[in-house]
Amino acid sequence: MTTPSAPLTVAVDSLRAFAKAAFQTAGLSETDAATGADVLATTDAWGVFTHGTKCLAGYLRRLRAGGLRPCGVPRVAAEGGAWATVDGDSALGQVTSVFAAQKAIAKARQQGIAYVGVRNSCHFGAAGYYAWLAAREGLIGISMANDIPSVAAPGSRGAILGSNPISYAVPAGRYPPMLLDISTATVAGGKVYAARMRGEPIPDTWLVGADGKPTTDPSGYPQIGALQPAAGHKGYGLSLLIETLSGILSGAAFTWRVGNWMWDDGQKPTNHGAAFIVIDTNAIMPAEQFASRMEALVDEIHAAPLAEGAPRLRVPGEIEWERHERAMRDGILLPADVAQSLRQAAELSGLNLEQTLA
Amino acid sequence: MTTPSAPLTVAVDSLRAFAKAAFQTAGLSETDAATGADVLATTDAWGVFTHGTKCLAGYLRRLRAGGLRPCGVPRVAAEGGAWATVDGDSALGQVTSVFAAQKAIAKARQQGIAYVGVRNSCHFGAAGYYAWLAAREGLIGISMANDIPSVAAPGSRGAILGSNPISYAVPAGRYPPMLLDISTATVAGGKVYAARMRGEPIPDTWLVGADGKPTTDPSGYPQIGALQPAAGHKGYGLSLLIETLSGILSGAAFTWRVGNWMWDDGQKPTNHGAAFIVIDTNAIMPAEQFASRMEALVDEIHAAPLAEGAPRLRVPGEIEWERHERAMRDGILLPADVAQSLRQAAELSGLNLEQTLA
Repeated sequence: MTTPSAPLTVAVDSLRAFAKAAFQTAGLSETDAATGADVLATTDAWGVFTHGTKCLAGYLRRLRAGGLRPCGVPRVAAEGGAWATVDGDSALGQVTSVFAAQKAIAKARQQGIAYVGVRNSCHFGAAGYYAWLAAREGLIGISMANDIPSVAAPGSRGAILGSNPISYAVPAGRYPPMLLDISTATVAGGKVYAARMRGEPIPDTWLVGADGKPTTDPSGYPQIGALQPAAGHKGYGLSLLIETLSGILSGAAFTWRVGNWMWDDGQKPTNHGAAFIVIDTNAIMPAEQFASRMEALVDEIHAAPLAEGAPRLRVPGEIEWERHERAMRDGILLPADVAQSLRQAAELSGLNLEQTLA
Repeated sequence: MTTPSAPLTVAVDSLRAFAKAAFQTAGLSETDAATGADVLATTDAWGVFTHGTKCLAGYLRRLRAGGLRPCGVPRVAAEGGAWATVDGDSALGQVTSVFAAQKAIAKARQQGIAYVGVRNSCHFGAAGYYAWLAAREGLIGISMANDIPSVAAPGSRGAILGSNPISYAVPAGRYPPMLLDISTATVAGGKVYAARMRGEPIPDTWLVGADGKPTTDPSGYPQIGALQPAAGHKGYGLSLLIETLSGILSGAAFTWRVGNWMWDDGQKPTNHGAAFIVIDTNAIMPAEQFASRMEALVDEIHAAPLAEGAPRLRVPGEIEWERHERAMRDGILLPADVAQSLRQAAELSGLNLEQTLA
C-alpha cells in the first residue's frame, strides 16, 4: 500500500478495528479492546497524533511484558456521596480511565459534581477523550493525570513535575463542545525533539539546559535538560494541583515514583494517577438556559474584531472538531511516524496492517 | 504620622480594625464589616497589595452609591447534594464569597466535593482568601471569578475575557497550605501601567496594541490595547473554563455584561460571578496519609537541584506565608499607593486614619 515511512490514509472505522484487533491479540477482552481502540482512533480523528494509535505499539509491548495486565479489572476501591477512588489493577490506562470517568458522570448526575481519583493506572493517552465522555452526555468534564517528571520548576536545574495534562469539555448548545487539552509545559517535548532533528534553535521559553537556565539549543534533549513550565510559576502551580488531585489524593505514585510507560521495565506497573471531575449542569441550571448562554459566549467570540492578519477567532476544540468531521468523511491522513508505529503494532500482533485497514 | 505619598507601617490588627470601622460607617453590619475587613487585611499580610485594603475606598464609594448594597444578604438560591448557587444580593463581594465558600466547605464535608456558583456579586478581591478558608479547615479549596474583559484571545484585536483569576489552597501537613492565586493574563495590568509611568518598554508577551498584535509599547495602556493571555491558547482556554463555571453556570453576568467595579456608574450592580469548588480530602484518604504524602512532595521539591544562580525552590504560597508571618510580627509596610488609598477611605468614612491605626 505504501512504503514504511510514508503517510497513510485510513478510514476511522478501519483504524478503530485494527487497534481493537491488536488489543485482542494481546489478551484484552473484546469490550476492553473496543474501549482502548475508540480512545486512540478518536484521538487521531481530532488530529492529536502524538496520543493516538501512535502509542499502540508501546501499549502492546507492555501488555505482553505484564506491566500492563491484559485481564486487569479496574474497580472502585472506595466511594462516598460525590467521590470515588478507582484502583486500575494495572489494566490499560484507557480502560481504567473510561471506567473512572463513567463513574464520575454517574455520581455527578446524582450530586451535581463528582471527583474520581485513579491509582494503578498507566499512560491514559489524550486527556480530552475523558472530558468529552461527559460533554457528550451534556455534562462538563475535567480530566487530568500525572506522569514521570519532564518539566522544570522556576529555579530548578532539572525536571520536577510531569507534563501533567489537564483537559475540559463543556457542552455548548448547537456548537460542538468546547474542548481544551493542554499540558502544563510550554510545549510538548516532541516539538523540542523535532527542532533537534532539524538542527534548528528553539525559543528560549521551551527548555532549560544542563545548568537549569533557559536555552535555545535543543541538541542535548531529551537526555539533557527539562521542559519549561507554561507561563513559569503559573504552569508550575497548576501542575502541582494536578499532581495533588491525580497523584497524591488518589493514592497513586507521584513525581519520580511514576514509571516511564515507554522506557522502563515493561514488566513493572507504572502506577500513574489520574483525576476526573464532572459537573452536571442540568442539575444546576435548566438545560436550555445553559445552552443559550454558552451559545451567546461562543457567538460573541466569533464576532469579535480580529487582530491584523488573524484569520478568525476560535473557542477551544474548534480545530479538533473540524478535523474530526473531515476524518469521518474522508478518512485520516496519518503522519509517517504514526504509520510506522502502526506497522510495529501489526508486527507485534501478527496482523496484516494493509488487510485490516482495507 | 507620614506624608500622603509615603509608605505606612501598620499592625495587621489595626489595619483590620480600620477597614471594619470604615465598612460599618458605610452601613455594613458588624459581622459583614468584620468579614470584609479580614479578607482585605489578610490579603495585605500576604503582600498582595493590589487586592487588599487598596480596594477599600472603591468599595466604600460603591456602597454609598448603592451599586453595592450595604444591607445586602447573600442567600442560597438553589441547591442539591453537592452543589449550590448563591445570589449575592449585591452585597460586598467579599461577604458573598465567604458565605459561598463556607457553603462549599459544608457541602464538601457531606459529599467529598462540592461546587458553589455565585451571581449578583462584585469584585471579590484576592481569590486566594476563599481557597484558604477551605485549607485552613483541612480541605482543598479552589476559587475563581470572572470580570469585565481586559485580556485578548489569540488572534483577537481587543479584550475578550476578564483577567479571570483562579486560586487553590491545599493543606500540606506540617507546612503551610500550598496557595496559588493567579490571573489568566500574562501579567497584571498594573505592571504594564507601571512601565508606562516609567516610560519603559515591556516584553512583547504582555500586551497587544490597537492592531491586536504584540507590542513592547505600553504608552497607550489601558485606553489602548489588551493584556495577552498567559501562555497564549492555554491561558485563554483556562479562562474560558473559569468564565463558564463562575459566569455562565452561576447565572451571573459574563464577559462584557459584567460591570466595571471601579469606573462604572456606582449605583448599578456589577453582577460579577464566582465559583468555589471544595474537596474534603479527609473523606477520601486518612488525614495522616494525605499529610505525609503532601509533605513528601514538598520535601522533594525543596531538596531538588537548583538552576545556576537560583536561590531556592519553593512551592506556591511560601513567599506569601513568609510575608504573613513577618506581617503578624512586625506589621505591614504598606506601599505609598495603598497608604494614599487608605487616606481616601478614611476621608470617605469620616475616620481619622492615624488614630484608628494607632
